[in-house]
Formats: sequence, C-alpha cells, structure tokens
Amino acid sequence: MTDAALIVIGNEILSGRTRDASLPYIGRRCDELGISLLETRIVPDLEEAIVEAVNTCRARYRHVFTTGGIGPTHDDITTRSIAAAFGVPVVRHPGAEARLREYYGDGRLNEARLRMAEIPRGAELIDNPVSGAPGFRMENVYVMAGVPVIMKAMFESIAGRLEGGPPLLSRTVVTRHAESRLAPGLAAIQERFPAVSIGSYPFFRMGSMGVRVVLRGTDATLLDQAEREVREMLGCLDRERP
Amino acid sequence: MTDAALIVIGNEILSGRTRDASLPYIGRRCDELGISLLETRIVPDLEEAIVEAVNTCRARYRHVFTTGGIGPTHDDITTRSIAAAFGVPVVRHPGAEARLREYYGDGRLNEARLRMAEIPRGAELIDNPVSGAPGFRMENVYVMAGVPVIMKAMFESIAGRLEGGPPLLSRTVVTRHAESRLAPGLAAIQERFPAVSIGSYPFFRMGSMGVRVVLRGTDATLLDQAEREVREMLGCLDRERP
Repeated sequence: MTDAALIVIGNEILSGRTRDASLPYIGRRCDELGISLLETRIVPDLEEAIVEAVNTCRARYRHVFTTGGIGPTHDDITTRSIAAAFGVPVVRHPGAEARLREYYGDGRLNEARLRMAEIPRGAELIDNPVSGAPGFRMENVYVMAGVPVIMKAMFESIAGRLEGGPPLLSRTVVTRHAESRLAPGLAAIQERFPAVSIGSYPFFRMGSMGVRVVLRGTDATLLDQAEREVREMLGCLDRERP
Repeated sequence: MTDAALIVIGNEILSGRTRDASLPYIGRRCDELGISLLETRIVPDLEEAIVEAVNTCRARYRHVFTTGGIGPTHDDITTRSIAAAFGVPVVRHPGAEARLREYYGDGRLNEARLRMAEIPRGAELIDNPVSGAPGFRMENVYVMAGVPVIMKAMFESIAGRLEGGPPLLSRTVVTRHAESRLAPGLAAIQERFPAVSIGSYPFFRMGSMGVRVVLRGTDATLLDQAEREVREMLGCLDRERP
C-alpha cells in the first residue's frame, strides 16, 4: 500500500471560517484507490510554512496532494512556494498559456489570468476541465485548486495514474451501549484481527448517545468475520442488560 | 499576539468519513482570543505520528491544542502518546479518579472508565462538565476530547487562562466580478494596508460564481478604511462593465 499526505493551503480554512472540502473528498478517494493517507496539514498563505510542509511531506510520503492558493490574486502564493521548495524558478508554461487562451479567448486573457500559466520549471500540467487554469505535478507533489468543484475534477484527472493498492473497505456497526462497556470486547476482537483496524466513535445527537464502531481493512472476508464478532459481542451485552 | 497549533487525532477524521469539528470551533475562538492559529495537523491513531506532531508543535508554538483519542477504548492512544512525547509515565490521577467516581457512581465505574483517570505524570486536569472524564494540560499542550460537545466545553474551561492578544476582526465583501478582474486592485489595496490581511475566495454555487473578499486584522479603523477601498474599487469595476 502506498502512502500519502494532504496539505490544505489557505488562511480561510485555517481560520475555521470556511470548512475544508478537500479532506472529505480526497480521504474517501484514497481509500478507494488503496492509498493510505497518513497525514493532513492545514497551513496558512505564508511561503515559509508552505515550503516547510511540502519539503517535509514529499521526503516522507509517496504522494503529496496540495489544494488551494493557485488562483490569480495576490494571496495565491502556492505556485511560487512550491517552486521555492524545489529550488526552481517559476516560468510561463506554453501549454498552460494555450489552455487559458482557449478557455478565455484572447480578449479576456488579462495579466492576472496569465499569471495562472506560470508554474515551477519542470512541472507537468494537471487538467482543469472546469475553468481552464491547470494544476501541476512536480515530482511526487500534486498541486491542485482549492475550490471544491475544481479540486475534485483535478483529483479525478490524476487518480488513474496514482500508484495505489487494494481498496480499503469498511463496515460500520452502531450501538447504544456506552463506549466503556464495549471496550474490553472490542480490544479482544482487535487483537484477534490485526489486519482489521477497529475504531470506536462515540456520538451525542439530540440528547441521545451512542457509538459507531468502524472496521476497516482490505480483506472483505476478514472484515465480515470481525463484524460478526462485534455484533455477537453487542448481542451478549444486550442480554446482560437489555 | 501569541501563536498556536491544533492537532486533530483520529483515523476517522483523517479518512474524511467524519468531518472535523475542532478547527471550525477552535479557529474561530482563537480569533476572538487574539491567538494566531498557525497550523493544524490531522494525524492517525498511531503513537509515533502523535509523538512527532506534538513534539514538533510544542517546541514551535506558544499553545498546542489536541483533540481526540482520550476515551476508554483500545484505539484511544492519545494519553500514552503525550506521555511518550514528554518522556514521562502515565499514572492514575487521584483528582481525575474522584471526578469519574462522582460522575458515574461507584457501581458504574468499571475498568475501562478508570482508564480515563490515567494521565501523564505532572499533567494538570482540564474540566469536562459534560461527561466527567477530564482532559489535561502538560506544559503548553492542552489535550481535549474529540466529541464536539465535550471538546467545546473543555476549550471554554481553559479559554480564560490562555495568553492571547487583541481579537482578530474581519470584514467580508461579496462580489460577482471574476477574481482575475479584482486581482490588480486588491493587490494595490493590500500593499497600502500591510496590517490588514486580505484574502480572495472564489465560489461556485448553484451554477453561479462569485468571490468573497475577506479582510482581517486587529485594528477596526484600518479595517473600515480598507473595506471602503475594496468597495470603491468594486464600484469602479461595475462602471467599467455594468
């Protein structure tokens, strides 16, 4: 299984004002593609913060995805930060310029938009079927837009080429028993199924509480067995205290 | 202005299946408290990942907040990971045990629940008015629950003691002009107001597109002036192309 990190770039996400849409999408897609997403970092629009996150993650993980900060305004500093991380200049990419020219037409291709044709030297374009301006790949770093509809389209345009593994599958069991009552039984089942990752997530909703037990793994047969054991364990708890 | 980092701990968040609720809350509260949240990391339930994130962030930032992984089940490994990060053992805290005993009553205080009274040696408790089991502070690291209602209550129980600064204020201006048309004017205004952070966030919603321009800073007068300049600039664009 290959591993990956996601770097979400932007003051607006980091401030908590705008909800991040990248992790919910890319996290799910990584499961389907058999890519193990091991870390997500949310960093501000500050070159040194972006450079450090990118350089740490690209040395550590097979794939690094970034979202945000590749638009035409002054606060879009991702491109120049990625170039700085790789120690290369930003250059106008003829292919990117051609795409913008086609998308906007000559009359509407102003200076600000042309800025989106500038990418780090040596980078390869990532298609943007939504709004023309491409993302780019620099070695193992995939640089994509932050606007959700564009981020998703860009991710899909690279998904087929990402090295992955068998898809990560999951099963969910919901119970009203308290987490502390499940704890010993769940720990024992986890021990018997080391290839299945078992998580326990309490929730409080409209005055009522419960636990979602989530089992994850790549082997459907093992998952089915582990799920059956969880359900049997819950059945025993029901009988102890109905 | 003091700075801070947030570390969100949990496979379920990192997988994208469960939306993180910590950043939307803590990010907004940091603004109000005049604390500059400079980084958020989302890490899995893996001791080495937690230790590394905590040790990196606690050396770098004044305050470090963690959420998630302090419950009673086998996958709750935050407490022992924080202890490992600080190189101290986990010990049963008499005050924490007393709180659990009071909350649950003797009959319902089982082994799994008592586990929640074990915290790193030297840590100080953080109140949990919702469900008894406390969080804890270890030096500049505040360890809180992940369940949103408890996370919020724990944060509020420490908020008054956090060193902060003047609140970060914001103004938002929404426009239907394309981001690339705003770019030159916004850049010029940003240059005139270095103490105001101006961000430009395009959105596509129900087939229509627009841009939210967000101005942030601690000086209300400067913010008002910068906002007025943004609105004047947009007015000029309206007249150019109504």
